[in-house]
Amino acid sequence: MAIPTSPLAVTLPELPPLAGVRLGAAAAGIRYQDRNDLVMMELAAGTTVAGVFTSSKCPGAPVDWCRASLKGGRARAVVVNAGNANVFTGRAGREACAATAEAACKLVDSPARQVFIASTGVIGETLPHERLTAALPALYADLREDAWEAAARGIMTTDTFPKAATRVAQIGDAQVRISGICKGSGMIAPDMATMLCFVFTDAKLPADAMQIMLARGVDASFNCTTVDSDTSTSDTVLLFATGQAKHPRIPPADGSAARHRLLADFARKLDELLLDLALQVVRDGEGAQKLIRIEVSGATTARSAKRIAMTVANSPLVKTAIAGEDANWGRIVMAVGKAGEPADRDKLSIAVGGVWMARHGGVVAGYDESPVVAHMKGREVSIAIDIGLGRGKATAWTCDLTHGYIDINGSYRS
Amino acid sequence: MAIPTSPLAVTLPELPPLAGVRLGAAAAGIRYQDRNDLVMMELAAGTTVAGVFTSSKCPGAPVDWCRASLKGGRARAVVVNAGNANVFTGRAGREACAATAEAACKLVDSPARQVFIASTGVIGETLPHERLTAALPALYADLREDAWEAAARGIMTTDTFPKAATRVAQIGDAQVRISGICKGSGMIAPDMATMLCFVFTDAKLPADAMQIMLARGVDASFNCTTVDSDTSTSDTVLLFATGQAKHPRIPPADGSAARHRLLADFARKLDELLLDLALQVVRDGEGAQKLIRIEVSGATTARSAKRIAMTVANSPLVKTAIAGEDANWGRIVMAVGKAGEPADRDKLSIAVGGVWMARHGGVVAGYDESPVVAHMKGREVSIAIDIGLGRGKATAWTCDLTHGYIDINGSYRS
Repeated sequence: MAIPTSPLAVTLPELPPLAGVRLGAAAAGIRYQDRNDLVMMELAAGTTVAGVFTSSKCPGAPVDWCRASLKGGRARAVVVNAGNANVFTGRAGREACAATAEAACKLVDSPARQVFIASTGVIGETLPHERLTAALPALYADLREDAWEAAARGIMTTDTFPKAATRVAQIGDAQVRISGICKGSGMIAPDMATMLCFVFTDAKLPADAMQIMLARGVDASFNCTTVDSDTSTSDTVLLFATGQAKHPRIPPADGSAARHRLLADFARKLDELLLDLALQVVRDGEGAQKLIRIEVSGATTARSAKRIAMTVANSPLVKTAIAGEDANWGRIVMAVGKAGEPADRDKLSIAVGGVWMARHGGVVAGYDESPVVAHMKGREVSIAIDIGLGRGKATAWTCDLTHGYIDINGSYRS
Repeated sequence: MAIPTSPLAVTLPELPPLAGVRLGAAAAGIRYQDRNDLVMMELAAGTTVAGVFTSSKCPGAPVDWCRASLKGGRARAVVVNAGNANVFTGRAGREACAATAEAACKLVDSPARQVFIASTGVIGETLPHERLTAALPALYADLREDAWEAAARGIMTTDTFPKAATRVAQIGDAQVRISGICKGSGMIAPDMATMLCFVFTDAKLPADAMQIMLARGVDASFNCTTVDSDTSTSDTVLLFATGQAKHPRIPPADGSAARHRLLADFARKLDELLLDLALQVVRDGEGAQKLIRIEVSGATTARSAKRIAMTVANSPLVKTAIAGEDANWGRIVMAVGKAGEPADRDKLSIAVGGVWMARHGGVVAGYDESPVVAHMKGREVSIAIDIGLGRGKATAWTCDLTHGYIDINGSYRS
């Protein structure tokens, strides 16, 4: 089935070379025909790494591999394949990871544990890793500094457009670059939205500082998005710092404020980039016709606000109402009520497109419906919910639930 | 939009008169035209009552009314309307309940707090209770012992078939009857599936014994079903005992085994009846083409098994795969993994239609796919999941997720 490009698609930004990263894509014939399905990145010696993974209790073999490799804090290569997730494949799955790392580490001349691996696609089929390892040497020989688009396309599965973002951050008086690619469009849910995401910077960063910034950034981006409430077994976000840029040295974590101050802009730009990529995934949500932003305020705590926002974002009845361009705030009340968080029906207020339709537990008599109707017809729908109890705030993003989602998932074996 | 009758519909059983219950339906014009939308039941003096309600933090005014009335333990009348849920209606909502109870209690000559009220339909619109109270006297004058079908039809909203069940139970050497009607097809989720259900018996039962049996029965029936994971603001199950049958007296709760023994068959038949009604709701799930049974075994506890079963039952990717007649057990692994309960990928086994496709963390090599393919084409799909860790068991029921769900909820304002 040919899936049309999402109407919410954004144009791939131009990603300039990033010192210390060479990359490329090749067709290894793992599952797909006539397209690249294998991506490799080579990283400069000394590259540090941080990672965040799925909360699934049944993660794929590549997630286990990366978690174990992360302990060393160093990376020299990344190998990613599309078409087969290498999940629920038992011992064969672990062997496929080991064989892949073995083949890649020989090429880059590093220990196997400095190779990071990610796989996405069908669950429960043995990964034909010999096809992958057979294709690696030629792919490696062809790695370039400017193959970002090929890499972004090579990791796609049901994605309808490639996803990338880039930012420049200041560390002291020097500039560093952060660039990332990611994939994902279904099986997207909280606790690490279902996707693969690889972010690179030429900054020279201690792995522990990277881990803190990445975990925070993912929590405020990917973990605030949902397409269908389903959490993948393979979610992976990796951040690599090649250390090629010249900038003031980041001091070790000694409790002083110097480190924090030096990394403030980097952390901010990383957050921006992660949110940019996360929203690209929602924009490519299976069958998505509208991007939905849900802002909750007045909850008892920020955590409570996030739970309410995500419950509204995951409600099929809210998502189908928006697909039908119906500003059905009754369904929003329902979703707030089922979140299980402190809420008082008689203090609740709801706005759609900036117009308060319900205030303090009742309809706003004679509110002007026409701007709301016009807002609902647009590609981006914004919902604000004030719980009226405290100062907790959170924002979540999702897409509408349409016939396209059923088309894609009722016929595609993924 | 005309919604076709569910292909999973069952025929309405014949409900004989039940001593102490008279009922009927009328067209009050609350929202619908040309159909009954108001139902009343009169109950014999001395009727006892138990109830279980939605877990929503934003319940409707009728739920508040019933919770408060339940404290008295006695009931003389039930008034139900369809088309308007009287939810998120502030003070007007509370006034509508009081006015309805006032009008009904005059007819049956009881305190207002012995009138139970339920409403289902649109949220956030003021209930035009004067239409309801205007229609009550004529409806009351017309109550009969044999109007069960009219009552079952009068409470429907998006339901495509009326729902009722009846059982005979033994108390000592006497027989008593239990009959119930219910409605529901969307906004159906755990913590009290989204529906209204009214169950009546001619037994003479203490309210405290009824409450225990009802809560247990609902937990093993309605709370094990889901259509769309959305929990309504109005879920209500009420059980009334008219005390008209002659049977050995049920002793007060004194800790002796006599009471338990005397009520054992009644409790069993009540459980059966509640499950029968709950499955009728799933069979009428919006857009449902298949009834899905998910049996989890080998979990660490029964509670953990239930959470896993409900997570699988709520997964859009599992439900769309079944709609597409694809025995996609990879998505089942995904759903087990996201439940957050103890699970070990390498001990997991999965069967569809009784055929084990995956055992102990891997595909069963060369398993015979043809009976599985045939099973998936049927109207009832059964999934078994063995977690392989302990002895916890649970069963959940749901329906598939189809274009019909999007059709109904993308255009119907409910």
